[in-house]
Amino acid sequence: MAIGAEIIETVWIPPYEGRGVKVSKGQRLCIIDVEGKQVGDFVCFNRENPGEHVSPVHMRSSLSSIRLKEGDFLYSNLRRPLMRLVKDTVGKHDFFFPACDYYRYKVDFGREDHPNCHDNLEKALREFGIKPRPLPDPINWFMNNVLDENGDYVIEEPLSKPGDYVMLEALEDVVAAVSACSQDIAPVNGYRVTPLKLQVLEGR
Amino acid sequence: MAIGAEIIETVWIPPYEGRGVKVSKGQRLCIIDVEGKQVGDFVCFNRENPGEHVSPVHMRSSLSSIRLKEGDFLYSNLRRPLMRLVKDTVGKHDFFFPACDYYRYKVDFGREDHPNCHDNLEKALREFGIKPRPLPDPINWFMNNVLDENGDYVIEEPLSKPGDYVMLEALEDVVAAVSACSQDIAPVNGYRVTPLKLQVLEGR
Repeated sequence: MAIGAEIIETVWIPPYEGRGVKVSKGQRLCIIDVEGKQVGDFVCFNRENPGEHVSPVHMRSSLSSIRLKEGDFLYSNLRRPLMRLVKDTVGKHDFFFPACDYYRYKVDFGREDHPNCHDNLEKALREFGIKPRPLPDPINWFMNNVLDENGDYVIEEPLSKPGDYVMLEALEDVVAAVSACSQDIAPVNGYRVTPLKLQVLEGR
Repeated sequence: MAIGAEIIETVWIPPYEGRGVKVSKGQRLCIIDVEGKQVGDFVCFNRENPGEHVSPVHMRSSLSSIRLKEGDFLYSNLRRPLMRLVKDTVGKHDFFFPACDYYRYKVDFGREDHPNCHDNLEKALREFGIKPRPLPDPINWFMNNVLDENGDYVIEEPLSKPGDYVMLEALEDVVAAVSACSQDIAPVNGYRVTPLKLQVLEGR
C-alpha cells in the first residue's frame, strides 16, 4: 500500500480481542486483514453525540441494498452518513448479521466461556467513555454470507487475502471499534482467528 | 377464518396508529390485514424480562435466512424463541428494514410532522409499562422487499389481500405491539394506509 507516509496512528487487534480508535472528520480509517480470512466486527459512534451510531438496519434502508460498494455512506440511526467507504480490496462484507455474543456460544455451541465480539467491542468502547446498551448491530467486514435466490444463506470463508483492507473516510469526528471475530468453530474466519490492523490516515 | 370461537381479545389498529396486546404462553396472536396491502411493524417483549425482545438481527442468524416460513421461531436478543409463526396466508414479509421514524420522513421526504411506526410503537408499549430505548428493529409483516441477485432491492406493494393474516403462537408470556405503517408516499402500503386487526386466540 502506498499509504505509509500519511499514517497518523496504527492499532493492532490481536486474535480474539477488540480495539477502538478515534478518527476525526476528513481523516480515513483503514481496516486491514493481516493474514486473510479474518472477519472484523465494527461499530462507530459520533463523538459529539454518542447516541448517534452507524446503524446497519438504517443503512439497508438508505442504501436499498445488502451489499456495500465503494462510495457508499455508512448511515446512522439518525439517517445521516457518519463515514464513507472509499476503498475496498475485497468487495464482500456483511451488514445483516449480529456480533457473536455470549448467548451464541452458549445456546448454539454449549460453550460458556468463549471470547466473543460483543463483549470485545463493549470493552474497547469503555476506554473512550462510550457505554452503549444495547450495542448497535455491527458491520462485519470481510464476512462472507452467500445468499441464494430464496433468501436463505450459508456463511462461507472470507474472500480476503493477507493484506486486504477497506478504507473509510470520517464525515464526522467518530470513535470506531473493531473486534477480530472469535468464531473458530464455524467457517466464519476460516476456522482460525488471526489479527487485524487499524490505520488512521490523514485526509486527502 | 374458522377461528372465531376461540377469540380471547380483538384489537383494531386504525390507519397511522399502533396498538399493543398481551399474549400468554400457549396462546396465539393473529395479525390480520383487513383491507390488504397494509404493512404492520411488529415488536414483541418477554413480560417476565422486558430486556428480552424479538430481535430480527438474531433471527437472521438463528434462521440462516431473510425469509420467514411457517414453523419458524421468532428469536430474541438472548437467542431464545419467544414466538412461533404457525400460520401465514401471504408468505412475504420483511425483517431487515427499520421502522419508519421521524428522521425517515424528515431526511428523505422533507416532512417534519408525518406519523411514523417508531413513535406509534413506543406509544403503544408505554401503556404496558415498557419503555425500550432504543426500540428494537421490527418485523414488518406483509412488507414486500424484492431482492435481486446482487443484493440490491426495491420495495413493492404488499402481496396481501383483504383478510390475509399471520398467526403466531406465544412460547413465553409476551407483550406484542403492531403499527399500521404510516408510509403513504412510497409503494410500501400501496400508497394507502389502512387498518389492521389483532386477535388473541386460545392455545390449541
